[in-house]
Amino acid sequence: MSSVQMRDPPSFADVEAAARRLSGVAHRTPLVTSRMLDEMLGAHIVLKAEGFQRMGAFKFRGAYNAISQLTAEERGRGVVTASSGNHAQAVGLAASLLGASATILMPSDAPASKRAATEDYGATVIEYDRYRDDRHMLLADLAGELGASIVHPYDDPRVIAGAGTCALELAQDAEPQATVVVPVGGGGLLSGSAISLRSISRATRIIGVEPEASPDVHRSLRAGQRITVPISPSIADGQLLETPGEITFGVIASLVDEIVTVTDAEIIDAMRLLFERAKLVVEPSGASAFAAVLAGRVRDESIGVVLSGANVSAERFAELVAAS
Amino acid sequence: MSSVQMRDPPSFADVEAAARRLSGVAHRTPLVTSRMLDEMLGAHIVLKAEGFQRMGAFKFRGAYNAISQLTAEERGRGVVTASSGNHAQAVGLAASLLGASATILMPSDAPASKRAATEDYGATVIEYDRYRDDRHMLLADLAGELGASIVHPYDDPRVIAGAGTCALELAQDAEPQATVVVPVGGGGLLSGSAISLRSISRATRIIGVEPEASPDVHRSLRAGQRITVPISPSIADGQLLETPGEITFGVIASLVDEIVTVTDAEIIDAMRLLFERAKLVVEPSGASAFAAVLAGRVRDESIGVVLSGANVSAERFAELVAAS
Repeated sequence: MSSVQMRDPPSFADVEAAARRLSGVAHRTPLVTSRMLDEMLGAHIVLKAEGFQRMGAFKFRGAYNAISQLTAEERGRGVVTASSGNHAQAVGLAASLLGASATILMPSDAPASKRAATEDYGATVIEYDRYRDDRHMLLADLAGELGASIVHPYDDPRVIAGAGTCALELAQDAEPQATVVVPVGGGGLLSGSAISLRSISRATRIIGVEPEASPDVHRSLRAGQRITVPISPSIADGQLLETPGEITFGVIASLVDEIVTVTDAEIIDAMRLLFERAKLVVEPSGASAFAAVLAGRVRDESIGVVLSGANVSAERFAELVAAS
Repeated sequence: MSSVQMRDPPSFADVEAAARRLSGVAHRTPLVTSRMLDEMLGAHIVLKAEGFQRMGAFKFRGAYNAISQLTAEERGRGVVTASSGNHAQAVGLAASLLGASATILMPSDAPASKRAATEDYGATVIEYDRYRDDRHMLLADLAGELGASIVHPYDDPRVIAGAGTCALELAQDAEPQATVVVPVGGGGLLSGSAISLRSISRATRIIGVEPEASPDVHRSLRAGQRITVPISPSIADGQLLETPGEITFGVIASLVDEIVTVTDAEIIDAMRLLFERAKLVVEPSGASAFAAVLAGRVRDESIGVVLSGANVSAERFAELVAAS
């Protein structure tokens, strides 16, 4: 496959093929509804509880779909990526299931718990200094040295197609919603969701939600091209990117209706309400789409909301709830 | 129906009849499994996530099963109970669904949030002084005055039969487990579970778990009769009773294999692990059965665990996690 073809976004058929690969391996995560939430928000809300996915987030779908398409020989040489978050664990787990070795570049100041979780899946973690080292160069060097395949966290059509299976399930398991709201970081989940939803339910409005602290997709759409924004601190660590992905931005620009932003306080309110009313554990990035609904920034008669992950420790949850 | 007949425990046929009444009204709550939990505990663990039940706990099953058997005339005169916890909300919700008015006696020092949650279901709350007033007398007086039916929180065969549908679902939706572990307070859930499990899977060991702070069932079994124990403070507010129920104790004594106790610290460990690994919100009383497994007090190759409720505020959860 040439590198030019690799830059094409996946088609809906690619998402369907990903769903077949993931069948029996990934969990078909439940849809959660609550009469109380519906009454409170004046809309029928369908929550896609993706935190019940393997390793606790949607990232498993894309990593597994990508690695499962490597040849036996490529798997033999292993996979590499750079991530301190859910993508690291996703690649670790998917690689171990598929008999590939995984090497993950992780900043030396990443939380010990994230490193341990990744190593628990059998991956090798290599530290780098996030202030001094160039992550992209390091990753390319490492891949070259090992002859390993790079599994990009979002800007890879196989990863996007895998991520798209989450919204595919939402569309298959419930009546079509007037609006579907999806968190956006690098844009893999949002672009994959848009490819699925546009093919199944044309009338559905698709809205992406990013933290106010890194509104790169929002500003890039307004500028009509990918731009780089400064990042402020935010609790939504899975969504803090300076620049949208190349493939993902192309899909988002053509298929997504709107991007809205949320504050940290709004995300904490969402996490609290999901805990108390829906009895769901959701990490900050995973709660951002629901935060936009709760803050009244997205309104419609029926709203599908992707809760994309649940990897938050009890201590961190307690800290966030206590601080607000 | 004479009062002598009322003291008979329900049969398995009564549980099956309750399941038919609850079908389409109560949620069939999900079973949750986790490879990580299985590896950590060296057993196949099946969690019955009853916190996803309507109003957030198993109590809805018993209250609805009881109130739905009242005649139209009895419903017209309404129902009464005394509770500051999940049973109050269960009676409030079930009564409103069945067109009965509900009056709930609640101690004046009950948390405002519990009172508000009960009133949200349309129930009338009457306060009493838990140190000065005799709750049983007040309840009998109130029932007499209103001509209303009393819905006892556990010592009522209709309530026990309703509660038994939870373990019935566990037995129907999974392979039989070698051991099933169930929290015990008044004993409605445990006795109902035992009636279900003994009829479906004779070989299954049934274990009840109560807080060390009120080991009334444990000590009563040892004494061979219902005894009263002093209660110490505990976070497991749904399980703090001085004396086992009369009907429930009879069932427990004949059908349950063992009662074990857990400490508050063990319950908090269980809540934390369920949050982080299974992504489940569970209230202290609801986590006690899992706490017994986690503490190594229950061992077997396959263990079904009833997580009986999820009504804990984010603030309270944060407080418990921070304090431990």
